[in-house]
Amino acid sequence: MYEGAVQDLIDELGRLPGVGPKSAARIAFHLLNGDTVDAKRLAESIVRMAETVRFCNRCHNISEDAECRICRDTRRDPTHLCVVEEPRDVIAIERTREFNGRYHVLGGAISPMNGIGPDELHIRDLFPRLRDEEVVEVIIATNPNAEGEATASYVSRLIEGQGVRVTRLASGLPVGGDLDYADEVTLSRALVGRRDV
Amino acid sequence: MYEGAVQDLIDELGRLPGVGPKSAARIAFHLLNGDTVDAKRLAESIVRMAETVRFCNRCHNISEDAECRICRDTRRDPTHLCVVEEPRDVIAIERTREFNGRYHVLGGAISPMNGIGPDELHIRDLFPRLRDEEVVEVIIATNPNAEGEATASYVSRLIEGQGVRVTRLASGLPVGGDLDYADEVTLSRALVGRRDV
Repeated sequence: MYEGAVQDLIDELGRLPGVGPKSAARIAFHLLNGDTVDAKRLAESIVRMAETVRFCNRCHNISEDAECRICRDTRRDPTHLCVVEEPRDVIAIERTREFNGRYHVLGGAISPMNGIGPDELHIRDLFPRLRDEEVVEVIIATNPNAEGEATASYVSRLIEGQGVRVTRLASGLPVGGDLDYADEVTLSRALVGRRDV
Repeated sequence: MYEGAVQDLIDELGRLPGVGPKSAARIAFHLLNGDTVDAKRLAESIVRMAETVRFCNRCHNISEDAECRICRDTRRDPTHLCVVEEPRDVIAIERTREFNGRYHVLGGAISPMNGIGPDELHIRDLFPRLRDEEVVEVIIATNPNAEGEATASYVSRLIEGQGVRVTRLASGLPVGGDLDYADEVTLSRALVGRRDV
């Protein structure tokens, strides 16, 4: 509907996740009404990211070098390995400041509906790490949903018998939440996982 | 929190309207996981739009030339002028296929709260158009909200006495809607504007 270049940009923006045609038009007009310099700076960040950012050879987290910042950091404890689905989960756990080990990013979760089996994920190359980095505990921190749980049990079954402790993040009531707003599954997990005071 | 280029892109994306930090990260990872070619194509569309798209000298709609497609089209009736706030409103009215005149894009609505007065909008240069294009009717199609109504009454008061018919889009019940879901203001407008069957 719009003239050439604007419509092209709206089409491109509309392919991004969570951006529908209306938001795409809104973003395009925002860029159009603003300074040309701002629009070009956005374009340059996209190109720079696409060209410089790769994945860590060891843990598959995002990285600008062969190994990511966390794997290169000698102050991190290599004996504790936290398995997550995506690079953004690494950030979420880093923000807690409770974990000083290393990560292993699977690149997703097992999801037969979407054609993602164990071979599409970075599961196999966990084993050389367990051996080479003298890992004593693997913390499985996949999402607490169906795909995440399936992935967690697949990974933990694989690791079994390797002499490594395998743990899973606790499920329960979110801190600051209301008991009567919690869904039944969360509440029953909180009951099952109850701890001595 | 993320490494250099990724965080830079997330920051840039987070400045766009309707894109919060979580969506910005989601979009950045989408671009990162996809093909480098796709990310570069998006960057190129942004640059191309920023470089080629300007505003029509006559009606201030978006255009890649000195005058936009609609102003250049000799089959359009120059005696009917539709005044809208934004270029996207032009598209909305074009989609109805009910209007064959030309447009005048104000570039927004009068909004003292946001520091936008009549001088920030393309209101003054309506007058040469009324004269030069022999306009017989001005249809004011600003949004049916407080700012749009204020702009409509300001523009119509200015045009008064120029020998031009000034009309406003009808307010009333949206087609396909339910009477008991309509708000009081809309329903009272629909009553006031009732028509003979």
